[in-house]
Amino acid sequence: MLNRLHSILTEVAAGRTTPEAALAHLRDLPYEDLDFARLDHHRALRQGAPEVVFGQGKTPAQVVAIVQRMVAHSGSALVTRADAEMAAQVLAAQPGAAYHAAPRLITVGGFAEPKAEAGFVAVLAAGTSDLPVAEEAAVTLEWLGVSVQRVWDVGAAGLHRLLDQREVLWAAQAIIVVAGMEGALATVVGGLAACPIVAVPTSVGYGASFNGLAPLLTMLNTCTPGVAVVNIDNGFGAAMFAHRIVAPAPKLSAE
Amino acid sequence: MLNRLHSILTEVAAGRTTPEAALAHLRDLPYEDLDFARLDHHRALRQGAPEVVFGQGKTPAQVVAIVQRMVAHSGSALVTRADAEMAAQVLAAQPGAAYHAAPRLITVGGFAEPKAEAGFVAVLAAGTSDLPVAEEAAVTLEWLGVSVQRVWDVGAAGLHRLLDQREVLWAAQAIIVVAGMEGALATVVGGLAACPIVAVPTSVGYGASFNGLAPLLTMLNTCTPGVAVVNIDNGFGAAMFAHRIVAPAPKLSAE
Amino acid sequence: MLNRLHSILTEVAAGRTTPEAALAHLRDLPYEDLDFARLDHHRALRQGAPEVVFGQGKTPAQVVAIVQRMVAHSGSALVTRADAEMAAQVLAAQPGAAYHAAPRLITVGGFAEPKAEAGFVAVLAAGTSDLPVAEEAAVTLEWLGVSVQRVWDVGAAGLHRLLDQREVLWAAQAIIVVAGMEGALATVVGGLAACPIVAVPTSVGYGASFNGLAPLLTMLNTCTPGVAVVNIDNGFGAAMFAHRIVAPAPKLSAE
Amino acid sequence: MLNRLHSILTEVAAGRTTPEAALAHLRDLPYEDLDFARLDHHRALRQGAPEVVFGQGKTPAQVVAIVQRMVAHSGSALVTRADAEMAAQVLAAQPGAAYHAAPRLITVGGFAEPKAEAGFVAVLAAGTSDLPVAEEAAVTLEWLGVSVQRVWDVGAAGLHRLLDQREVLWAAQAIIVVAGMEGALATVVGGLAACPIVAVPTSVGYGASFNGLAPLLTMLNTCTPGVAVVNIDNGFGAAMFAHRIVAPAPKLSAE
Amino acid sequence: MLNRLHSILTEVAAGRTTPEAALAHLRDLPYEDLDFARLDHHRALRQGAPEVVFGQGKTPAQVVAIVQRMVAHSGSALVTRADAEMAAQVLAAQPGAAYHAAPRLITVGGFAEPKAEAGFVAVLAAGTSDLPVAEEAAVTLEWLGVSVQRVWDVGAAGLHRLLDQREVLWAAQAIIVVAGMEGALATVVGGLAACPIVAVPTSVGYGASFNGLAPLLTMLNTCTPGVAVVNIDNGFGAAMFAHRIVAPAPKLSAE
Amino acid sequence: MLNRLHSILTEVAAGRTTPEAALAHLRDLPYEDLDFARLDHHRALRQGAPEVVFGQGKTPAQVVAIVQRMVAHSGSALVTRADAEMAAQVLAAQPGAAYHAAPRLITVGGFAEPKAEAGFVAVLAAGTSDLPVAEEAAVTLEWLGVSVQRVWDVGAAGLHRLLDQREVLWAAQAIIVVAGMEGALATVVGGLAACPIVAVPTSVGYGASFNGLAPLLTMLNTCTPGVAVVNIDNGFGAAMFAHRIVAPAPKLSAE
Amino acid sequence: MLNRLHSILTEVAAGRTTPEAALAHLRDLPYEDLDFARLDHHRALRQGAPEVVFGQGKTPAQVVAIVQRMVAHSGSALVTRADAEMAAQVLAAQPGAAYHAAPRLITVGGFAEPKAEAGFVAVLAAGTSDLPVAEEAAVTLEWLGVSVQRVWDVGAAGLHRLLDQREVLWAAQAIIVVAGMEGALATVVGGLAACPIVAVPTSVGYGASFNGLAPLLTMLNTCTPGVAVVNIDNGFGAAMFAHRIVAPAPKLSAE
Amino acid sequence: MLNRLHSILTEVAAGRTTPEAALAHLRDLPYEDLDFARLDHHRALRQGAPEVVFGQGKTPAQVVAIVQRMVAHSGSALVTRADAEMAAQVLAAQPGAAYHAAPRLITVGGFAEPKAEAGFVAVLAAGTSDLPVAEEAAVTLEWLGVSVQRVWDVGAAGLHRLLDQREVLWAAQAIIVVAGMEGALATVVGGLAACPIVAVPTSVGYGASFNGLAPLLTMLNTCTPGVAVVNIDNGFGAAMFAHRIVAPAPKLSAE
Repeated sequence: MLNRLHSILTEVAAGRTTPEAALAHLRDLPYEDLDFARLDHHRALRQGAPEVVFGQGKTPAQVVAIVQRMVAHSGSALVTRADAEMAAQVLAAQPGAAYHAAPRLITVGGFAEPKAEAGFVAVLAAGTSDLPVAEEAAVTLEWLGVSVQRVWDVGAAGLHRLLDQREVLWAAQAIIVVAGMEGALATVVGGLAACPIVAVPTSVGYGASFNGLAPLLTMLNTCTPGVAVVNIDNGFGAAMFAHRIVAPAPKLSAE
Repeated sequence: MLNRLHSILTEVAAGRTTPEAALAHLRDLPYEDLDFARLDHHRALRQGAPEVVFGQGKTPAQVVAIVQRMVAHSGSALVTRADAEMAAQVLAAQPGAAYHAAPRLITVGGFAEPKAEAGFVAVLAAGTSDLPVAEEAAVTLEWLGVSVQRVWDVGAAGLHRLLDQREVLWAAQAIIVVAGMEGALATVVGGLAACPIVAVPTSVGYGASFNGLAPLLTMLNTCTPGVAVVNIDNGFGAAMFAHRIVAPAPKLSAE
Repeated sequence: MLNRLHSILTEVAAGRTTPEAALAHLRDLPYEDLDFARLDHHRALRQGAPEVVFGQGKTPAQVVAIVQRMVAHSGSALVTRADAEMAAQVLAAQPGAAYHAAPRLITVGGFAEPKAEAGFVAVLAAGTSDLPVAEEAAVTLEWLGVSVQRVWDVGAAGLHRLLDQREVLWAAQAIIVVAGMEGALATVVGGLAACPIVAVPTSVGYGASFNGLAPLLTMLNTCTPGVAVVNIDNGFGAAMFAHRIVAPAPKLSAE
Repeated sequence: MLNRLHSILTEVAAGRTTPEAALAHLRDLPYEDLDFARLDHHRALRQGAPEVVFGQGKTPAQVVAIVQRMVAHSGSALVTRADAEMAAQVLAAQPGAAYHAAPRLITVGGFAEPKAEAGFVAVLAAGTSDLPVAEEAAVTLEWLGVSVQRVWDVGAAGLHRLLDQREVLWAAQAIIVVAGMEGALATVVGGLAACPIVAVPTSVGYGASFNGLAPLLTMLNTCTPGVAVVNIDNGFGAAMFAHRIVAPAPKLSAE
Repeated sequence: MLNRLHSILTEVAAGRTTPEAALAHLRDLPYEDLDFARLDHHRALRQGAPEVVFGQGKTPAQVVAIVQRMVAHSGSALVTRADAEMAAQVLAAQPGAAYHAAPRLITVGGFAEPKAEAGFVAVLAAGTSDLPVAEEAAVTLEWLGVSVQRVWDVGAAGLHRLLDQREVLWAAQAIIVVAGMEGALATVVGGLAACPIVAVPTSVGYGASFNGLAPLLTMLNTCTPGVAVVNIDNGFGAAMFAHRIVAPAPKLSAE
Repeated sequence: MLNRLHSILTEVAAGRTTPEAALAHLRDLPYEDLDFARLDHHRALRQGAPEVVFGQGKTPAQVVAIVQRMVAHSGSALVTRADAEMAAQVLAAQPGAAYHAAPRLITVGGFAEPKAEAGFVAVLAAGTSDLPVAEEAAVTLEWLGVSVQRVWDVGAAGLHRLLDQREVLWAAQAIIVVAGMEGALATVVGGLAACPIVAVPTSVGYGASFNGLAPLLTMLNTCTPGVAVVNIDNGFGAAMFAHRIVAPAPKLSAE
Repeated sequence: MLNRLHSILTEVAAGRTTPEAALAHLRDLPYEDLDFARLDHHRALRQGAPEVVFGQGKTPAQVVAIVQRMVAHSGSALVTRADAEMAAQVLAAQPGAAYHAAPRLITVGGFAEPKAEAGFVAVLAAGTSDLPVAEEAAVTLEWLGVSVQRVWDVGAAGLHRLLDQREVLWAAQAIIVVAGMEGALATVVGGLAACPIVAVPTSVGYGASFNGLAPLLTMLNTCTPGVAVVNIDNGFGAAMFAHRIVAPAPKLSAE
Repeated sequence: MLNRLHSILTEVAAGRTTPEAALAHLRDLPYEDLDFARLDHHRALRQGAPEVVFGQGKTPAQVVAIVQRMVAHSGSALVTRADAEMAAQVLAAQPGAAYHAAPRLITVGGFAEPKAEAGFVAVLAAGTSDLPVAEEAAVTLEWLGVSVQRVWDVGAAGLHRLLDQREVLWAAQAIIVVAGMEGALATVVGGLAACPIVAVPTSVGYGASFNGLAPLLTMLNTCTPGVAVVNIDNGFGAAMFAHRIVAPAPKLSAE
């Protein structure tokens, strides 16, 4: 920023630019050209993370339009919470689009080959009913170019199935734990693994789950360190968080 | 009941009892002599469970009076939620009374030798802070004449400590799991043991425990069968429930 | 466990087994052969309790496949929360399957003749609207080979109907109380009976029931000892818990 | 109101009153003299219910001043939620004042002899810890000149003690049920009595009472008709409500 | 009760009744013949209140059968929460049945002419959306033979409309206030009237009404005495409570 | 009021009006003619705010009737929460009616040209899913004759988009902030603008939004002064409140 | 902003300033000199609103230091939630400081004479216990130079006292309604007045107030338009909001 | 594990070890020597993270004993939630212990020099009242050998102060955001930074914060990706989680 100002000022001082031309150059300075505005562009470049659209509450036509603009800009797109009708229209309109029915995701592009040295994220699901949320996390990570190991059906009530997978837990760079009912899996995994654990409560359960409040509170109150929590059923958010851990953006200097 | 009526009627028919004498005999029939009224006396005889008083909200003087009446009647008494001042007054007034400071219990009598063949109740505490509630359960059971095995500090975050105790879990007739924070221990124990598990949430925890709401919901939503739940911090209630499992009352016939 | 290790080591020492063959034998030792893994097999044998599948959130095809695998393995199966469409497909594919419409259960096999000396579980329902949950408990118990006595329509507002049944309450080994609205029945029964009482709140009620929160809190706060609580509408869970009381598994030694 | 206007207008028309004098007479008409304003004065006359002051959050000095003004106006006063310090100052300043320590009430005057034909209000308390709230209801009623029958320690867990009192329940004109814990007493009484039942939840209980939320929900969801509910620990409010039932005000005509 | 026992005993003493015949006469004494059992019959006679069935959660065929049994017994019936399909079947099967669509009530018989001297209950509805609940209260009262005055659309935001009706408020023997949104109407009416006020919160409202929680809390916390509260949307319960006020049952003696 | 009484009294005193005629003139005095009754008429005149009807829970036929009466009286009408079917019937019956589908509003008349000097209200929406609520606010304001500037898609996560609009924030007379998810936009806008900010939480969000509870609490707890909150999804209410700020009614004197 | 850049560029072009000197001049441009940073300074000038410090959770020494810095900068200061000890230290250290004990405010400077034409804010308190919060609002407004009319003790239960004040309600530019218990006063005032109404729920009340949740929900759900709500007990926030209504800041152009 | 078994078996086969000696060697195999048990030791070695004790609810004497055992074992210790009295006793008994009063931490040892290339964690606090929690996070990280940059008093209401620190946000490896009130800071930071953000809600705030529920929900519902949440006031948990991100443990192989 300061450097850029300095070179413009030098051009003006040298008479190679008039004040008016310099001003025209700088007029959008207050926000468009500021670092925090430029940051958005930086972030996409750094992370290989194209933009994402929340499909719920939008019409298929709106989503088609947004996806086309995204793909034109970055070559890829991700739509979350997309139902089958929305997917049909997007797939008809956008070459290369794919629909992942269980996690309700539409993807275009993405899925770069993970780098061998980059490690992987383990995605655990406590029960079969938690799979749609777990797949939302797993597919989002893969679309972002992150290697994933799925570990399904390892609820805390059957400890041996989880212990069977403990080498996966030890080798992972980050773990996403998806669990409904009482959500105790996050605590048990927290006691076995040494990497960061992102817990996702789901709304799967009987009455006193109160639509996911029970596992949410369980995970927030876990007695094991190394666990943080995202919103109920938010597999996408867990993936984005884990992506920041395993694929850190290059540090920005202030220029 | 019907038998008793019959014999009285027969006495009257035979002229051995006047109607008035019979009536005097039966006058408290509507409730005092009914089976469901007599039940209370039966219960105490069967269970060896003397009466219990909830100390909280009573004055020491009131508790002294109640304890003396209890001891006069049954030879024993249990006071829950008793603070040190209350205990001091009871111990001064009632020979044989003892104060258990951590669980805040005053006992008189009780503590019969458990029968060898009767098995035991395992009382588990997840963390050190859960001990007062766990001790309330354990001492109450012992006062009721039930054998107890204490298993402390086996929170779900350190699985190996719990697995170390699995033979205790397998040998118990019932298990009481006392846990605060997120209460996941109940789920893990539920997956390891085959006997009934009584879960006691405690109010120990950080902010989003909401004074025990978090472990309460965890335990109610557990994905493992064989777990039932009592009130927050209610070690006494868990003991009374477990006592009904391990020392069942003789079945009543209707006479 | 140690015994088994010892005999293998002896075989190796005697040259009757090579180290490699012994190793192949032991390779799954860390978890598959450990007692806590074997426990699962033990449990099925001991309890006559074949595996159970939670039907909700699964497709009929998935449930058909799981049931067939279960029946092949153990000769019986239980599916909870199964709707009519799911039941139709399972009944078409699996000989011997039966559908219990009110409690939404599919059963295959099970229903062994209860042993005469084993006693019974009384299942109480406060109102007609609580019957589906109460039947879920009753049928699950019967499928597990436990004798059941149903006591319907004995809500706390009409005390005489309940008192009429007090001999059943006195004779039961355990009582399951199913109640919506305000759930006061658990307290009243708790005052009449001496056996363990498993309370099941239901989501039946007017607005301030908050989908079962009201009877859940009522039952957790009951002023009578001997009551523990399971999740809202969880008749299945109550049955599994009661089964552990009335049909205790043989105690495991550590071998 | 219209009559009064008419007579004033007639006086003016007859020249016996000037418009200005009439206006002076009527100047406070918009509210002070309107029926709904006069209502307050009517109400006190009709009901024999002197004014009441909520002591909590006021200084002793403020309460002394208010009480003195009340007594000067009506000869009596009632202060609720008064602590001992406040009571000491009021008693020192106001002859005839009395302090009721358990219910924390200060009374001056009142306590008129109930009319023999007027019937009584039964005030029930489930447990000893509920007594301060129950006494707040009972003393308030007595101060209002209503006959009270106290029925203590009849919690729903010990049915026979309550049934013992059923003649009181049948004879009462209204019943106030004060209960903490799970509050089931209101339901049981509702099934036994035919008069209106005012339920008062109290904040007495273990953790999941959530300071009275549990009995509040119990009472609101009661499956028996004839029960209405007031605020947690609000014995005073229950008494005021019951007073309106047993000592109805004479009906107002619009004149 | 005691009298009855005495005369039987006398008959037996006189040889006019054998013990066995007396026993047959008394055999259902323990509960069926006890006063608290007889109470139910007394109640119906006293109150002119035939039995009531909660329609929700029952099949039309079940309701038809119950209604026919009720009418055979008492000549009248009331079904609450009945939808149109249920009503059609009941009306086809039971002569004299009528359907009240807005409050979803089916009535048979009832609607006795109110006694002129008996006064009336005022039923107030704050807004048009509250009418179904208010009509449930009003029609229930009329079916019970109580005179009703309906006062619609007098929400607290438009005070003059309410003040316009104050003579009705002053003349009523009891007032039922039905209000959703914030439920402030109960407080305002409480300040204007001197009779008992039964408040019914409704689930009508924007998001933070939380399905009626907001007006429920408003009504419970009202700063005016003389208000008690029933469950959300429970117009029927309010009517049953008001009926106990305005048509008190004759007092029972213990004989 | 007093002046009016005085002139009437003078007329009577002068014999120009009989007491009876004066009384006829004044008979509706108690409420209809009182200032607080007249207020309603004053308000409509002052504010140019015709009456409004809440469409939800009413039948299309009812709404048609109400709208026709409104238009006959004031020439305009606004219906909120109207679905397409209701709109079709109103548009068929009432010339000049228009339907705004996204905010579900029906308008007749209104939309007066805002006065140039009157300033404008900025309506901000955090995300696309918040638009229906934001449009409800914006169209209501425009129908009331208030100028609106819409600022869409300026959620707090993308600060530069909001900063880009800061001149709008500085120029507005009032700002309505509509936001779901976590609702942080209200806080950020509160730190940038100096005018009153009306925050509207929406029910848009993942599970732990609890239908708008999350942004509601966020906005109530905002650390920036100058923010007040209306009900969840209540765009109409925010508009009515903002209208009172930007188009204040002329002050009333008491005559 | 652009003007300032232009003049600097012109200076550089003219050789009157070197690029380096210009750069030094502009170096803090990215945020310190941006309009949104300058905004803070503008705001203080415009509004006559010196800075405010939240006293709670700070030591007296910290508050003394902050106040001295504030007064040095702007000549005035306001401390909220200050206890007596904190006040004593501030008054000892800072000449001109005053302590307002009921609302727990410390003021220095401020209290400019309100302009005659500026109107006033009416501050209403429902009960005596709400006065500390109401005074926090009133004194804050006066310190900000806004005229205030206090209207105490006008709870919704006593309508005539409020109607007595209706001319104040009609003349106010904004109204702050402070109410605990059920908070119905906001609704009633909303129906009487035409100006913006800022509602402040207080934590005053019986149990089911849940520390102010009840009046908070009441006020959010009010059926009358023109009411917005601030946090529980937040009289200060209501004053800051009302100040923005009655003393609007001059509009900023972007320069 | 398997390798270890193999070498033992080979020793036995070779006759160099008797079966009994091998067995003695392996006897604690079932859990003590299993990888998941050894994990604990590995973890401490890898992470340089000595053990930690939760001080709350323990006596000073207990904490002294635990700390001494810890220091004997690992040379360092950390006690959280330690009050001054506890700290005094620990400092008296344990050389090298230090007390950090604001975050209530006792440390022994630790504070290794962070590696230059390891980056840092930025710890942000929204307000002064959030500092104790923020310091708990910062000091814990430093004790763990992680470099920290503190950024205080950057609440979302004053955006320019936060933007001033954006270079710190861009350079951090992870960010801990500590905020009470409405917790919007997490959202704003989430929009500015590209690294993982750990959000810590605090219990600081006015009434409707409900002891931290408000910022907790805000942070869980944030509309920006890259944010995960820990328990209310749990600065320690946030530090442990961030430590796992910035100082990942070496991956374990299964041998």
